[in-house]
Amino acid sequence: MNMILLFEDDFVGEGRVRLSGRRLRHILDIHRAKIGDELSVGLLNGGRGTGTVHFICEEGLDMDVSLFRPPPPPLPLTLILSLPRPKMLRRVLFSSSSLGVKKIFLINSYRVDKSYWQTPFLSGGHVRQQLMLGLEQAKDTVLPDVHLRPRFKPFVEDDLPGLVGSATALVAHPSAAEPCPRDIGGPVVLAVGPEGGFIPYEIEKMLSSGFRQVHLGERILRVEIAVPYIISRLF
Amino acid sequence: MNMILLFEDDFVGEGRVRLSGRRLRHILDIHRAKIGDELSVGLLNGGRGTGTVHFICEEGLDMDVSLFRPPPPPLPLTLILSLPRPKMLRRVLFSSSSLGVKKIFLINSYRVDKSYWQTPFLSGGHVRQQLMLGLEQAKDTVLPDVHLRPRFKPFVEDDLPGLVGSATALVAHPSAAEPCPRDIGGPVVLAVGPEGGFIPYEIEKMLSSGFRQVHLGERILRVEIAVPYIISRLF
Repeated sequence: MNMILLFEDDFVGEGRVRLSGRRLRHILDIHRAKIGDELSVGLLNGGRGTGTVHFICEEGLDMDVSLFRPPPPPLPLTLILSLPRPKMLRRVLFSSSSLGVKKIFLINSYRVDKSYWQTPFLSGGHVRQQLMLGLEQAKDTVLPDVHLRPRFKPFVEDDLPGLVGSATALVAHPSAAEPCPRDIGGPVVLAVGPEGGFIPYEIEKMLSSGFRQVHLGERILRVEIAVPYIISRLF
Repeated sequence: MNMILLFEDDFVGEGRVRLSGRRLRHILDIHRAKIGDELSVGLLNGGRGTGTVHFICEEGLDMDVSLFRPPPPPLPLTLILSLPRPKMLRRVLFSSSSLGVKKIFLINSYRVDKSYWQTPFLSGGHVRQQLMLGLEQAKDTVLPDVHLRPRFKPFVEDDLPGLVGSATALVAHPSAAEPCPRDIGGPVVLAVGPEGGFIPYEIEKMLSSGFRQVHLGERILRVEIAVPYIISRLF
């Protein structure tokens, strides 16, 4: 955690926060903070700045917080991911959040294992928790929106036209003729398929919604590697 | 596993291999292969092609193998990594191998936790196993070389000059003024620091060995994300 993420609920007075639990543990064990130390902090969906330790013990921590700079700029990217297996999903959400993605659609497609939609990870705040860990890593404060779309056809027909608009819409597909473009300098909608890829019907539906197919070279990459790899190329 | 990696030891006759263990399990459970099916195969440090199932049961598999195309081109990259924590090391080795990196130096630096050098993962074939999983993912056959350098100064003074030669030498460092260049089109030596970064002394030693410092933007990325991110930019 390169920045301590704060919530409105943490405030116990004007500019003062009280922390316990995971964040206190991290500040005690990793930062080994003492009274007077300054830590990098940010308010969820708000500004960033410093927190000066006012009091600290094994039970809690009080900090005086000053927020004086905005969060880093977001990526102009809408990421559409075929729902990956839970372990990969966790990593992709963390990395996407740390890279500045703010809009993520997890969609169904033919080669998505039906059981992935049943994972407890998709409910009960786990997704949000993973996104917040990514924010803390990258010193960002703006929580990405994650939307679940467990049916492919309604997603493509009802959501896609509005999402694409005037953005560059790309679908990563190994058999595409065009390589993934570089440094595109504008909003992008990017779709990444499941292990084994999108099926031809799905590719056709996306092409008819204004997508172009692009490839990443001969090597087949795991989705958790493909996502940062493509983002680095595009922006 | 997008390609079954074969070894000289697997051959039981002219062009015929016999498999058991992990690869057999995968072929039975994931490919659900039957007699006559063709699978994508590659010989370690050799060619790629197809294996036609001749016989298969719960105890073993015989395939007739035809190797007719070379492995994908390697990346012209020497990757120098401050030894990360074991969990991240596993992932970085997998992704580096799948991205086509063929030369990796794991080095010590001031902020590397001493305990990381004691991990059982560094001995007993685990590193090689992880690299091979990366090859199977990317349909590559050429095993990367991994070199351990548990002392920073001898590495910089004795190894670095020979490694750098006429290559572009870059060290990723958050406070650098120059952004990471794109599409560099030639051999690169890339150094990536530990969590918390290289210390000034280490950066100076590298600069005096011909390195340039480059940054990846304002966001601090985990090494497992930074590596594919930088590789995508450079090549």
